[in-house]
Amino acid sequence: MRIELPVLNAAAANACRAHLDRLTKPQGSLGRLEELAARLAAIRGFPPALEKPHALVFAADHGVTEEGVSAYPRAVTAQMVLNFLRGGAAINVLARLHGAAMTVVDVGVDADFEAAVPVNGVAFRAAKVRRGSRNLCRENAMTAVELEAALQAGANAANAAIDAGADCICVGEMGIGNTTSASALTAALLNLPAEQLCGRGTGVDDAGYSRKKKTVAQAVERFRANGLTNAAETFAALGGLELAGIAGACAMSAQRGVPVLVDGFIASSAALVAERMWPGLKHFLFFAHQSAEPGHQHILQALDERPLLELSLRLGEGTGAVLAIPLLRAACAILKEMATFDSAGVSESSKAR
Amino acid sequence: MRIELPVLNAAAANACRAHLDRLTKPQGSLGRLEELAARLAAIRGFPPALEKPHALVFAADHGVTEEGVSAYPRAVTAQMVLNFLRGGAAINVLARLHGAAMTVVDVGVDADFEAAVPVNGVAFRAAKVRRGSRNLCRENAMTAVELEAALQAGANAANAAIDAGADCICVGEMGIGNTTSASALTAALLNLPAEQLCGRGTGVDDAGYSRKKKTVAQAVERFRANGLTNAAETFAALGGLELAGIAGACAMSAQRGVPVLVDGFIASSAALVAERMWPGLKHFLFFAHQSAEPGHQHILQALDERPLLELSLRLGEGTGAVLAIPLLRAACAILKEMATFDSAGVSESSKAR
Repeated sequence: MRIELPVLNAAAANACRAHLDRLTKPQGSLGRLEELAARLAAIRGFPPALEKPHALVFAADHGVTEEGVSAYPRAVTAQMVLNFLRGGAAINVLARLHGAAMTVVDVGVDADFEAAVPVNGVAFRAAKVRRGSRNLCRENAMTAVELEAALQAGANAANAAIDAGADCICVGEMGIGNTTSASALTAALLNLPAEQLCGRGTGVDDAGYSRKKKTVAQAVERFRANGLTNAAETFAALGGLELAGIAGACAMSAQRGVPVLVDGFIASSAALVAERMWPGLKHFLFFAHQSAEPGHQHILQALDERPLLELSLRLGEGTGAVLAIPLLRAACAILKEMATFDSAGVSESSKAR
Repeated sequence: MRIELPVLNAAAANACRAHLDRLTKPQGSLGRLEELAARLAAIRGFPPALEKPHALVFAADHGVTEEGVSAYPRAVTAQMVLNFLRGGAAINVLARLHGAAMTVVDVGVDADFEAAVPVNGVAFRAAKVRRGSRNLCRENAMTAVELEAALQAGANAANAAIDAGADCICVGEMGIGNTTSASALTAALLNLPAEQLCGRGTGVDDAGYSRKKKTVAQAVERFRANGLTNAAETFAALGGLELAGIAGACAMSAQRGVPVLVDGFIASSAALVAERMWPGLKHFLFFAHQSAEPGHQHILQALDERPLLELSLRLGEGTGAVLAIPLLRAACAILKEMATFDSAGVSESSKAR
């Protein structure tokens, strides 16, 4: 997929910082909210606003579940998609709480959803590439053509949301087995041993956890033996269809100058590949939270990014991304509504005078 | 002030945990949101709700400013109170963003506010005990009678907010010089050296920072030489009127079974004294964020509490407390709105079956 990243607006970021220093507060005292404001200004211009966040939840199945790596049966992916469409999942609750629209994108679930009618506020996009990726520990998860189709499905979903007015995209996922894929991808891209990266995902037991670590190690070994080198080849070999959807959505949002809130470990692993495919993409991404999955901190370190929240979440679906919306909104509201020292008649500090 | 803390509702907390385990998510996967939900249930019953948060901003001046410990002139306390009443400060913006009512309580500002008419959504309480505390490095900041009056002012403000329907109290402060008081209090109560606790507050320069550290050390020395022992005596010696207001508000909210979001370093130092005065109070308090002030982490460690946000804020006013409202709301919404495995027809994990 061809992506052209826009140039960041340095003048707007500078105008934002200058404005922040005129507001009735000690300079820099709003800490990371001030950084967020300047980063948003670099993407959106000054002053940035955040009115219409939109959560894109990408769902797909994983062939690797046949290795017994998950606490849940594969059927749960489809069951949870139906739960999303009925409005009963955590992501539904949190998206409603924060006034975010939500679209569920089927990039590769092993089930049919034609009969399902989503509740108000939730949309469904049928973009199935195939009924689940292949078993990545035995063969490549996707062909190059399937990867491209899944990336494009993500880009299309982002385009549709942005065309409908979205000014912030939240990306999340559902796919039984996908922490295995995310761990393998991360191990391959960062050249780290599987054991350091694998967590228990949705809560696999000891035997399953051992199988999972072995599976990831085996997948990475197979991948290395194939002599694959670039990010797209790595993605096709070890990724998942919903991960590719996330990568495509991140890339298209960035191309259109719309900031992205990235959920936890799995979404971040997709963002890591995307940054390798389209260097500079990360300046459009906000990493929402530090996941409880051990692999996540390695990705954040590699990207030199600090997450906004640390709540020991390990649910996925985009829940962490949506939970960070109020922080971006707060950064925008501060810029728009606070009084300046001049307008409020407040004395400045001895340092500033 | 006499306070009787209610018994925590262990049955409601257990009902909450059992309910969380029936919801369509891996057990424990919402991390700290699940802890928050159970803690709120222990205070409010099951299921807890958070509909009407109310920010109480306590303001007072400090005699210790005559030592040259702050980057801002003393007059800024009054100027910022006027800014609060006009709706232009950071706390106004964030309270509006999160639908929180706001009351500014004058416990001891060296100015008169009779003429000021607050904007919509902001209330003013005149509860001046005296026009600023005494210089704590040379004499006790408050007499026992003044301390009691300031505690009562805080309790009265909490009572009024709760009578008006508040189901969550956020506490914050404004008072030029009050990081000096908070540092001295913390050093005395935790028996730590002043240098470890003092930060630059609103951004004092190097010379002022040296004076501040010397002032805090001198204050604690004076206090120790006096042989004072209990928490109330420490508070009167080294505290401030707005800190006492915060302590009184925390205590009364707890007595009435209403959870409190505690802002950063200064509010937490008041909460620390309050916990010493009314042991067990901390179970009603939620520490909203980790402040950039170095003393804050020592307080949180001593109370064995982990803050909800870490945004390098060092503004005060209650801004961090109000920023954490969405996390408590999210915890309540999850309990109220998520589907269960049964109701959604989602398969449970192999572990749970």
